[in-house]
Amino acid sequence: MTRVHIWGASGYAAAECVRYLDTHPFVEIVTLESRSHAGARLADHFPLLRTTSYRFDGEGSTAAALRTGDVVIAATAHGEARAFVPQFLERGASVIDLSADYRLDDNAVYGLAEWNRDAIADARLIANPGCYPTASLLAILPLSRLGVPRQLIVDAKSGISGAGRNPSVGSLYAEVSGEIRPYGLGGHRHQPEIERLLSVNGVPAPLTFTPHVVPLARGMLADVYAIFDAPLDSDAVRAAYAEAYGNSTFVRVIGADGTPSVSAVSGTNDAELRVDVLGNVVRAICAIDNLGKGAAGQAIQNLNIMLGYPEETGLHARAFVA
Amino acid sequence: MTRVHIWGASGYAAAECVRYLDTHPFVEIVTLESRSHAGARLADHFPLLRTTSYRFDGEGSTAAALRTGDVVIAATAHGEARAFVPQFLERGASVIDLSADYRLDDNAVYGLAEWNRDAIADARLIANPGCYPTASLLAILPLSRLGVPRQLIVDAKSGISGAGRNPSVGSLYAEVSGEIRPYGLGGHRHQPEIERLLSVNGVPAPLTFTPHVVPLARGMLADVYAIFDAPLDSDAVRAAYAEAYGNSTFVRVIGADGTPSVSAVSGTNDAELRVDVLGNVVRAICAIDNLGKGAAGQAIQNLNIMLGYPEETGLHARAFVA
Amino acid sequence: MTRVHIWGASGYAAAECVRYLDTHPFVEIVTLESRSHAGARLADHFPLLRTTSYRFDGEGSTAAALRTGDVVIAATAHGEARAFVPQFLERGASVIDLSADYRLDDNAVYGLAEWNRDAIADARLIANPGCYPTASLLAILPLSRLGVPRQLIVDAKSGISGAGRNPSVGSLYAEVSGEIRPYGLGGHRHQPEIERLLSVNGVPAPLTFTPHVVPLARGMLADVYAIFDAPLDSDAVRAAYAEAYGNSTFVRVIGADGTPSVSAVSGTNDAELRVDVLGNVVRAICAIDNLGKGAAGQAIQNLNIMLGYPEETGLHARAFVA
Amino acid sequence: MTRVHIWGASGYAAAECVRYLDTHPFVEIVTLESRSHAGARLADHFPLLRTTSYRFDGEGSTAAALRTGDVVIAATAHGEARAFVPQFLERGASVIDLSADYRLDDNAVYGLAEWNRDAIADARLIANPGCYPTASLLAILPLSRLGVPRQLIVDAKSGISGAGRNPSVGSLYAEVSGEIRPYGLGGHRHQPEIERLLSVNGVPAPLTFTPHVVPLARGMLADVYAIFDAPLDSDAVRAAYAEAYGNSTFVRVIGADGTPSVSAVSGTNDAELRVDVLGNVVRAICAIDNLGKGAAGQAIQNLNIMLGYPEETGLHARAFVA
Repeated sequence: MTRVHIWGASGYAAAECVRYLDTHPFVEIVTLESRSHAGARLADHFPLLRTTSYRFDGEGSTAAALRTGDVVIAATAHGEARAFVPQFLERGASVIDLSADYRLDDNAVYGLAEWNRDAIADARLIANPGCYPTASLLAILPLSRLGVPRQLIVDAKSGISGAGRNPSVGSLYAEVSGEIRPYGLGGHRHQPEIERLLSVNGVPAPLTFTPHVVPLARGMLADVYAIFDAPLDSDAVRAAYAEAYGNSTFVRVIGADGTPSVSAVSGTNDAELRVDVLGNVVRAICAIDNLGKGAAGQAIQNLNIMLGYPEETGLHARAFVA
Repeated sequence: MTRVHIWGASGYAAAECVRYLDTHPFVEIVTLESRSHAGARLADHFPLLRTTSYRFDGEGSTAAALRTGDVVIAATAHGEARAFVPQFLERGASVIDLSADYRLDDNAVYGLAEWNRDAIADARLIANPGCYPTASLLAILPLSRLGVPRQLIVDAKSGISGAGRNPSVGSLYAEVSGEIRPYGLGGHRHQPEIERLLSVNGVPAPLTFTPHVVPLARGMLADVYAIFDAPLDSDAVRAAYAEAYGNSTFVRVIGADGTPSVSAVSGTNDAELRVDVLGNVVRAICAIDNLGKGAAGQAIQNLNIMLGYPEETGLHARAFVA
Repeated sequence: MTRVHIWGASGYAAAECVRYLDTHPFVEIVTLESRSHAGARLADHFPLLRTTSYRFDGEGSTAAALRTGDVVIAATAHGEARAFVPQFLERGASVIDLSADYRLDDNAVYGLAEWNRDAIADARLIANPGCYPTASLLAILPLSRLGVPRQLIVDAKSGISGAGRNPSVGSLYAEVSGEIRPYGLGGHRHQPEIERLLSVNGVPAPLTFTPHVVPLARGMLADVYAIFDAPLDSDAVRAAYAEAYGNSTFVRVIGADGTPSVSAVSGTNDAELRVDVLGNVVRAICAIDNLGKGAAGQAIQNLNIMLGYPEETGLHARAFVA
Repeated sequence: MTRVHIWGASGYAAAECVRYLDTHPFVEIVTLESRSHAGARLADHFPLLRTTSYRFDGEGSTAAALRTGDVVIAATAHGEARAFVPQFLERGASVIDLSADYRLDDNAVYGLAEWNRDAIADARLIANPGCYPTASLLAILPLSRLGVPRQLIVDAKSGISGAGRNPSVGSLYAEVSGEIRPYGLGGHRHQPEIERLLSVNGVPAPLTFTPHVVPLARGMLADVYAIFDAPLDSDAVRAAYAEAYGNSTFVRVIGADGTPSVSAVSGTNDAELRVDVLGNVVRAICAIDNLGKGAAGQAIQNLNIMLGYPEETGLHARAFVA
């Protein structure tokens, strides 16, 4: 049994990790550190963890309990991980960081499992990808085998749980309901993350990225439009996606009579992907759960790869915390 | 033109008052005081006020601008009104208080317009009823002419805007969506308010009151069950409701083939009411908008009555702020 | 492996049965009969069955494939079961009927598992309870040990999936959204079902039953108010509920600092129940998933009891089809 | 008073027209023809028309009551208008057709008011634009003054009321809730409509159009990405939009610190538009109400222009029918 610590355990992604790990056969949860919720039962804060008996541990409990070989899942707010993760690594633990802190950092392995499996297997520090980058990159990267588009457009739609559980006016039911809200119109944190990975993976195309909040709790759809100078060959495009994901447990490529569905992947680590060649444009649409493949699910997938467990261990059941 | 000040102007009910008053022909809004939002444009905080040009005024602006004969609509959090309202009154203003502060106080007139019109017309200080008490009392009070029930049950369902615009975990989209949440199971602030008014109006029956949040931004349905020792006469019951609301501009009594609808009253000062005699039980179901008849709409109705304007002035258009 | 047929397989409850049974270790699905969808893949009609490979079978396929010892889950519209179920029984199959057809019929065993386990174990024909009766009866029946209330009020709130997947104006998103809709105000099919079971179980109290649709896809909350002539003893009430459900796998009695949550039971066969003594009134609130404990989950629970499998077999994972 | 007939009056757009016209000072509604709803009260079918007293008229009532100079608003399903509109015109009526039947036909004037005002003023037959084309064209057409883009991408999100009130599985609450659904991936009726108008207005660029349904009853956001060979001048772009809409009553161009909001335009004939130059890409985002500016609101605006009334007559109040 691998000992796992969830550090910063009061948010949606952390709770979703608990749900996945609760049935994981090779892992035990040792600490669930939360400054704000110390002592409380998770069951009282997350209805979907009702049947578990975990309690939040207090500040410092991760560090106190840490042993060599443990895994820390860091799920704190962006900006806090850098202050603590080095200590965890020094103490002999591996770390999977769900914040943005290490995503642009060469000292960490970028945890996009389908595209970085070997490095993840050898990693001690994994920067777990953002939800928007996950959906966008899964849709774009197969194109790397076909040439660099003149322009990339990513128009992404997300459920509001991506904004976290820290209360803010913009996340209130009365504000999200009945609204479609484009945001980050002057620039979004995830844009450089996507651009960096595109560059690393050989698709250094200019990117226009526009995120939107739509009225649902969880789920994400990214529509990627890759504009080329001339039409690509449809068969070659299809072949590239088939090659990329034909053996994937989690990424399903949908045919020309199907539709990627957020409902179909909600509560899972799955992704659904459909690609069409429309004149000079390749349109690839990817549906994920922002808290699943876009956060907690991918973290568990990375944990499995890092520890040498079968990749889908603990990821069969739907997990829902919001 | 009557000069109106909205004191505590950053919440949903206050903004809804602005929408109603913006087209009110006999009233001008002089100050919109908000400690937290001073200087900001309402249009930037409330999409549904987009076409207005109001700005929030800073702390103390109401007091500074106040003149004899002005009206202050107090829309601060519960507990703050008592510290300021006496000064406003002393300065010669009339006050309509949307908080709970004066609802149990004999120095204020309880602003349930359909049942207290004469006293409202003469009032200087009006305690605007809570949303739950409004829906409950509109449904119950006609029964006062028929006897005191052995027991009253009020099972009420509300949209989340009733919890205000101050962000809290319980009001987040991801928490309200997919949930039906009974609350206040150990006692709710509105219960004594309802009980007091029942007693004052001759229906001193024991009350069981259970509020619920359901997934919508605005709207409220209260199901009232009055248990008697013997069946009431259906015709007498219908006659009591017809007499109570037959001349009402805002309360519609729906017949036996109709259904009270929250959608139908959403954004309005209307109420829809259906009453059935079912054995020993009289069931009266009342639909209102918690921000309309349950807050801002009723405040404007009270303002009209107090100032001698036609009761429906400014209340024709639907007003929506959430 | 028990051979199971789902007869009338195109609705929400049937699809939810498929999801549960898909991971059931002792059961195989043999036919999925649907007149309207014959030949289509379930994955194309139900996003949450995407990873399965079932197809709908055509009319008559159940009868054609039936063998002695098989189980038929009948999930057709109300009114159709009576024409076919007798043939299935005659052919040596057992039947669990999700329609209302046999719920008032002494030839069938009423499948409220927590209250009828022994009879279910011996049954050949089970009338699976309606969702409203399930939530109502779970909340009321423990009171049978304490006396007959003078009056019972059941105020129930349901997600719209309870209305089925046959399209109708009242089930459209644009009609349900923003609305709270009481219905069946002149009488609802589930009222005699509840009354019959109350009578059979020794609580022959007059019942007022009011169902409501609220804006969510799945989930149900029933607020039961039992009015007595005098206050019941709180300890005795608590003891009655503890005795009724203390050993239950699926029914959780929540304490005085907890709240029954529809989210907590969504996608499961669980029920959450809280009971309070408030003067002469006992209020018992029960949350279930209308498609889970209120339909498919309870069907699988009954199947397990009938076949002698552990009661929770196949019911651990959350199942979602809407 | 102009006599108006609504032909095909049982859908959302027709009912929304009724709401607008109900307070229009220069118009009277003469017939509301609906085959399916003949005789019923609109108030019973549309909660938001509760306070009106209209009834649906039977088949043929429009033709029977028609006089020279009347206006017919045709709101039937696509494909039915062509059979009847010629008769209405022959009888001396003017027609505003909300269906797609005449949108690609040179015999009708395309009713995109901000771009076709003069022709509308002289028209006898107006093809009222589709909701997607309206939002898309309002966002794209100002670019016509700046050159033809190499490629146009339109990624549009719509509330489900755009699919109409005819019940279908895809419009059910339980299917739309929790889902983001791209559709028409193999081609959508609105694509040729947009392409034709682009061509007519001097922007013959290749277009990729992808519509999506998101979980809300009404509202639409279209994100337009125009890819040029080189960056456009920001000031010139801003100037083009300012010139196009600076005098518009209904189209608001939002600055660089603002966000187009579906809530802000919901229930109105307004549009909100923000444009950004991002490298070689011009991104223009347009928010409308699909039933307002995207259907009924624009129909009334066209009626006003055609009849010589001030353009905003009857369009001040929010109108909601879903």
